[in-house]
Amino acid sequence: MVPGRVSQAPLVVVSNRLPFILARGLDGRLERRQSAGGLVTAVAPVVIECKGTWVGWPGTYEMRPGEAIPESDAGDQAPTAGLKSSQVVAVNVAKDKFDAYYNGCCNGTFWPLFHSMPDRAVFKADTWNAYCEVNEEFAQNTLAALRATVAKLDAEGRVNVAPIVWVHDYQLLVAAASIRKAAEEEGLRFRLGFFLHIPFPSWDIMRLFPWDDQILQGMLACDVVGFHIEDYCLNFIDCCCRRLGCRVDRNQMMVELAGRTVHVKALPIGIPFERFVELAESAPKVLKTTEEKTILGVDRLDYTKGLVNRILAFELLLEKHPEHIEKVTLLQISVPSRTDVREYRQLKEEMDQLIGRVNGRFSRANWSPIRYIYGCVSQNQLAAFYRDSAVALVTPLRDGMNLVAKEYVACQIREPGVLILSPFAGAGGSMHEALVVNPYELDQVAETIHRALSMPLDERELRMTQLRRRERKNDVSRWLESFLDAMDGVNDETSLVGNLARLTLDDFGQYLDLDAACKLSLILDYDGTLAHLAAHPDLAIMPTETRRVLERLANLSDVNVVVISGRSLGNLSRMVGIEGITYAGSHGLEILHPDGTKFVHPVPLEYEEKLRELLRALQDEVCRDGAWVENKGVLLTFHYRETPVTAREAIVKRAGQIFKQAGFEPHAAHMAIEAKPPVKWDQGRASIYILRTMYGVDWTERVRVIYAGNEDAMQALQGIACTFRVDSSPAVRTAANFRLADPDAVLIMLKWVEKQMNKRSPRLARSPRLGRSPTQCIHAQMSFEDEDEEIRKSAHGLRAIVQTAVREPLVNKAM
Amino acid sequence: MVPGRVSQAPLVVVSNRLPFILARGLDGRLERRQSAGGLVTAVAPVVIECKGTWVGWPGTYEMRPGEAIPESDAGDQAPTAGLKSSQVVAVNVAKDKFDAYYNGCCNGTFWPLFHSMPDRAVFKADTWNAYCEVNEEFAQNTLAALRATVAKLDAEGRVNVAPIVWVHDYQLLVAAASIRKAAEEEGLRFRLGFFLHIPFPSWDIMRLFPWDDQILQGMLACDVVGFHIEDYCLNFIDCCCRRLGCRVDRNQMMVELAGRTVHVKALPIGIPFERFVELAESAPKVLKTTEEKTILGVDRLDYTKGLVNRILAFELLLEKHPEHIEKVTLLQISVPSRTDVREYRQLKEEMDQLIGRVNGRFSRANWSPIRYIYGCVSQNQLAAFYRDSAVALVTPLRDGMNLVAKEYVACQIREPGVLILSPFAGAGGSMHEALVVNPYELDQVAETIHRALSMPLDERELRMTQLRRRERKNDVSRWLESFLDAMDGVNDETSLVGNLARLTLDDFGQYLDLDAACKLSLILDYDGTLAHLAAHPDLAIMPTETRRVLERLANLSDVNVVVISGRSLGNLSRMVGIEGITYAGSHGLEILHPDGTKFVHPVPLEYEEKLRELLRALQDEVCRDGAWVENKGVLLTFHYRETPVTAREAIVKRAGQIFKQAGFEPHAAHMAIEAKPPVKWDQGRASIYILRTMYGVDWTERVRVIYAGNEDAMQALQGIACTFRVDSSPAVRTAANFRLADPDAVLIMLKWVEKQMNKRSPRLARSPRLGRSPTQCIHAQMSFEDEDEEIRKSAHGLRAIVQTAVREPLVNKAM
Repeated sequence: MVPGRVSQAPLVVVSNRLPFILARGLDGRLERRQSAGGLVTAVAPVVIECKGTWVGWPGTYEMRPGEAIPESDAGDQAPTAGLKSSQVVAVNVAKDKFDAYYNGCCNGTFWPLFHSMPDRAVFKADTWNAYCEVNEEFAQNTLAALRATVAKLDAEGRVNVAPIVWVHDYQLLVAAASIRKAAEEEGLRFRLGFFLHIPFPSWDIMRLFPWDDQILQGMLACDVVGFHIEDYCLNFIDCCCRRLGCRVDRNQMMVELAGRTVHVKALPIGIPFERFVELAESAPKVLKTTEEKTILGVDRLDYTKGLVNRILAFELLLEKHPEHIEKVTLLQISVPSRTDVREYRQLKEEMDQLIGRVNGRFSRANWSPIRYIYGCVSQNQLAAFYRDSAVALVTPLRDGMNLVAKEYVACQIREPGVLILSPFAGAGGSMHEALVVNPYELDQVAETIHRALSMPLDERELRMTQLRRRERKNDVSRWLESFLDAMDGVNDETSLVGNLARLTLDDFGQYLDLDAACKLSLILDYDGTLAHLAAHPDLAIMPTETRRVLERLANLSDVNVVVISGRSLGNLSRMVGIEGITYAGSHGLEILHPDGTKFVHPVPLEYEEKLRELLRALQDEVCRDGAWVENKGVLLTFHYRETPVTAREAIVKRAGQIFKQAGFEPHAAHMAIEAKPPVKWDQGRASIYILRTMYGVDWTERVRVIYAGNEDAMQALQGIACTFRVDSSPAVRTAANFRLADPDAVLIMLKWVEKQMNKRSPRLARSPRLGRSPTQCIHAQMSFEDEDEEIRKSAHGLRAIVQTAVREPLVNKAM
Repeated sequence: MVPGRVSQAPLVVVSNRLPFILARGLDGRLERRQSAGGLVTAVAPVVIECKGTWVGWPGTYEMRPGEAIPESDAGDQAPTAGLKSSQVVAVNVAKDKFDAYYNGCCNGTFWPLFHSMPDRAVFKADTWNAYCEVNEEFAQNTLAALRATVAKLDAEGRVNVAPIVWVHDYQLLVAAASIRKAAEEEGLRFRLGFFLHIPFPSWDIMRLFPWDDQILQGMLACDVVGFHIEDYCLNFIDCCCRRLGCRVDRNQMMVELAGRTVHVKALPIGIPFERFVELAESAPKVLKTTEEKTILGVDRLDYTKGLVNRILAFELLLEKHPEHIEKVTLLQISVPSRTDVREYRQLKEEMDQLIGRVNGRFSRANWSPIRYIYGCVSQNQLAAFYRDSAVALVTPLRDGMNLVAKEYVACQIREPGVLILSPFAGAGGSMHEALVVNPYELDQVAETIHRALSMPLDERELRMTQLRRRERKNDVSRWLESFLDAMDGVNDETSLVGNLARLTLDDFGQYLDLDAACKLSLILDYDGTLAHLAAHPDLAIMPTETRRVLERLANLSDVNVVVISGRSLGNLSRMVGIEGITYAGSHGLEILHPDGTKFVHPVPLEYEEKLRELLRALQDEVCRDGAWVENKGVLLTFHYRETPVTAREAIVKRAGQIFKQAGFEPHAAHMAIEAKPPVKWDQGRASIYILRTMYGVDWTERVRVIYAGNEDAMQALQGIACTFRVDSSPAVRTAANFRLADPDAVLIMLKWVEKQMNKRSPRLARSPRLGRSPTQCIHAQMSFEDEDEEIRKSAHGLRAIVQTAVREPLVNKAM
């Protein structure tokens, strides 16, 4: 428990399961059933003391809508006893969906993937979708809890206290994204933290997951992201850098996304050490007093635990050191796990058979080498096993931390035994005095067991004393405290340091690879890219500064500017109003070249007639309450932004029907529906057409292309142009190379490009093409220089330039 | 071909297979059989022109000892035709050993491991040993070739030309270590390069292999280590840093080991582009002319190739886009591979069944969706398939480079098709204009195939033009040239930059974590650690400088120095001659504390009698020709260093027998055999005993320990002390935290420690304990300051500090 701090900020803990299980008693009423575990022991008292909330699945599908969570019984001794039902939020999910989420995605995909066993991972869109939906359920429940918490704080006058929302583990990797978005929109006070209880894999493994970007962005929605050890932190940071193109600081362990700095922390979890000491002190003897030594293994029956290797190594020991026959027993406790999954049943069978074989080979009349308990044992029994075993074998193939190693050490209150530990468990990184052995190296494991069995007392004492001292100090309360400390640090003004500030643009420059000889074509969308979105298309006006930069760029002899839009050609050229550039209206169906030549994509004759019919039908039926139709010639747009919110759904639905009746696919646009001609043509294809007519068939040799805009053109231009998706919500998937938050960020990018082009070829620049006087040009150049300084200095501006690399990550040695 | 350069330096190519296969013809004589492949096409002509050599396995076990390699036939058209038999070295290996090496270790362990599929990898000591032995065979054959090459150069008067030895691929990861060692000892001129044709995995995966350190050290024996892409380079560098504790430069891509700088290079391999163009131009039409479009897949039948995913994605395509039924066929060519391995047979069965099912589901009277060829096709046929397919599906789960993607592109000489490519192939990193799709994301693969089938001509042309231009430019000759360029760069004075120079000692400091409160105990071996090894024990004298540092350290009140050795206590204290330190002689059986108290480990009474008998027997029988016995009291050492080399084997053998007859285990020492008392006591246990008696039972809380010496004490001190193995041959496995090359490096380490201790607690330092006058002390301090500058400046000195981190890597954010 962390006194002092908890009184300041209430905690909202979000975990897959509640700290107790709900089940229906004989009387048909829901009851709490205790669920043990160090996390609950440590965290529940803090939640109780700070009057916090716990959000989680209640362990049953049987809760009726609106059914209340029972209060704890009078005699409840569990750490959760003081948790009132008002502090508990049960997330109820339908069985099928929960199954797809939990068995499908969590345990079928993330468990093996995060343990770097990609062969065992199944990647399926439907279980992933279920995962996202269940995460959204958790997010909504958490938001409700957060609102209530903030309201209570306000009522108490504690208006400066921001509650801490703490999301746990691989079942809830993307929940934080929704929580942050809604909480920010609603103006709620909050701090958001995440802790992963399993390993985090390297980029090489993580990138196999098709939706890895959403995972990373989900985690980055937090202020603090915690892992057990630094290795996992560095893996995560590397993924953010290579997948999302985030700026990162590996020394300070920080990642930047969309202008926010996320702190990454190694927070190794501990156990309730003293509780295990007490258990070991009170637990009655279970193992018979003989000269026989016990080697102990305790694991969930899981393929990550290295159980097969362990049995094989033990067999090798008996083979190579027969002096241990009849002197040593391996007591292996395997806790049943995920028995409804085929792979786990297979492992069970393999273990049964293997243990049978080894026992058959070595057993004597009064001795078997392996005692194998497939089932659960009580905490008391376990403590006795820990206490009385000469050796503990903790040899997972991969393990986030492994608490068995720590529990064994805590219970070693009599003659000290020896801990054998895998380097692939998180615990292997800090429990130095254990005998560390690679579980794949069977010979070495056998030799290490032999060494442990024959280790002299003084060495055992020495090692165990150190191990116990460390675990006693770094127990689970200390871990909790460290996490809360890290959360408190969030308010400090810690963000990415200056020397990283230019990384993003430099990355982009490296990617673009502008050499002196090539020309540059800038293809830019209008709405939302050059101009901020507005309530009415006429109000979406391009900032003066953007216009000036575009004019200067258009003036460079080796730069060509294209503005492309869903607007009609006439409207677009009026809104932009720059000479000497190419305009492409109606999503590229109409193109006006700088020399005045015009291209109109052919449209079937009957289409025009049908379009007129559609226009009439829309005007007759749904053009009311502020809805109107824009006739763009080859396109038609039905705008409903001005309609009252209450009437909107009906209007949109009816309009959709009219589109379909008239034989058109209704294309959703921003608060509008569009009708497009039935031709295979889009902004991407139009862009390719423009480049080709402007530079000739072999243009790719001589021209670099930058495209900034929405997703429509991305696919066609992927791999051909350097693409920017302009969008403030990073959660949406994109095929673009980079992401820009908004038109302000586009402006900074354009200025940077101008700078590069000028630096590159001062002779070519500033040749007046549009008949301006030299004075004007010099002036333009001057003001550019000023602005350049501004770019360099403006940390804000640079931060606005964010980052999503594509499927194809940026190659960058600095990573 | 690379004219000019090849005339300068002959090439010795070392690859698992020779560039042709030998087989016995009908007349019983060996014949050359052609083996195609881009590598051979590119490299063979260069080997021919530079009068180089090719070392490899001939593809047969039937070569008789001494049997000559046949010359090529008169009509031989293969690129190897000009390769004379004198330029070919066949490495013959017994079938069993080759099988354990090739099927066992290469394909059973390294293939899946390096492709990041650790679940499929088998880790076995015996196949690994076979691997090392076969690599040694290759190394010896290569050395013979190198000797001949150097001799020929000398005979030609080209005494400044250093031949290039070029080792290939994952079958020969450790051969370079033996080559370098022997070649350096013999004073041969050479440059050593390595290229890996498969991926190199991340540290998380690589560390699973129990002997990963030997792999890394084997590769680092080269001057240049090449990989396909930068990702693999960075993975390799990371492994060197985290596993071996090497100093690395990620920007320059350099790794330092034992004072040598190794250059790591991304050298993406290409194909013989023009040859494929010619094939495509001349190949007759194979696919029938219909409206049907062909989607082509060509792969070895291997689990890394993603074949199951591909078929499932194609099934999804037919399901979601039935318009392709009867319009599109998937032509899948699967080349049989490793059919004697169970896993490959299983994959074959799975594919057969899957394809049967999909064909059963969608076939019509005159159309089947999948045409599946399980077998080989000729180069001509293949070129025709490439040329005439509308889509190529190259969707491996992991692939070093993938040349099918490049060959397809080369053969696209008519209407361009579309390449679909996995981002997990090396080719995915540079073939930007392909449609890149994650093979695990089946939906997306199906959609991408659909997109490829409906892509308009202009976009296809655009993409294919770019792809072809790049591959034409970066063909296999260019790759070869880049490799040779990189080898030529080796002679330049490029080595690790200054700002990395202090990393090592800082790492060590971080590991040691000396805080102001704790004491420091230095436990140091004598022979080979403090003093260089010498011909006679009396000649192994400690350098004056080392003595001065030790005296100063012993003078610090919070430092304790222990010198431990196999020498007798009296001899040891005479050789060291420093007051105020602890001496432990006879491997710790006798200990003399600074206060004069002495500990002697009890030895059984009968042992002394037996030892006297042994002494007599040895003196009677084998103490001649320079052999002599040293009686150390509790120990006895038989020295044979002075004996003539010819007589030595017999003497050593006889001495061993005498030891055994007298009831002693003969312990091998440096040119000596030792008899030790039958007690469980070694330098490690003695060290623990000393620490305990000196600081009390709870010493671990207050004392940091540094141990430097040989392997004997490492295990006991692992995890307890910071350990240095002092040894100049990094190939031997160690349990130590760090490695030091020799006593000079130990001296630098000691100076650094002194500096840290002084910096830490200036008040505690310099308190004269041994009655020296203050002047002396100030003088000592002064000279230390001078030397410190020397440490800082001496790049050479710092470079001598080399390091192998242990199983437990150094945690280091800078990594």
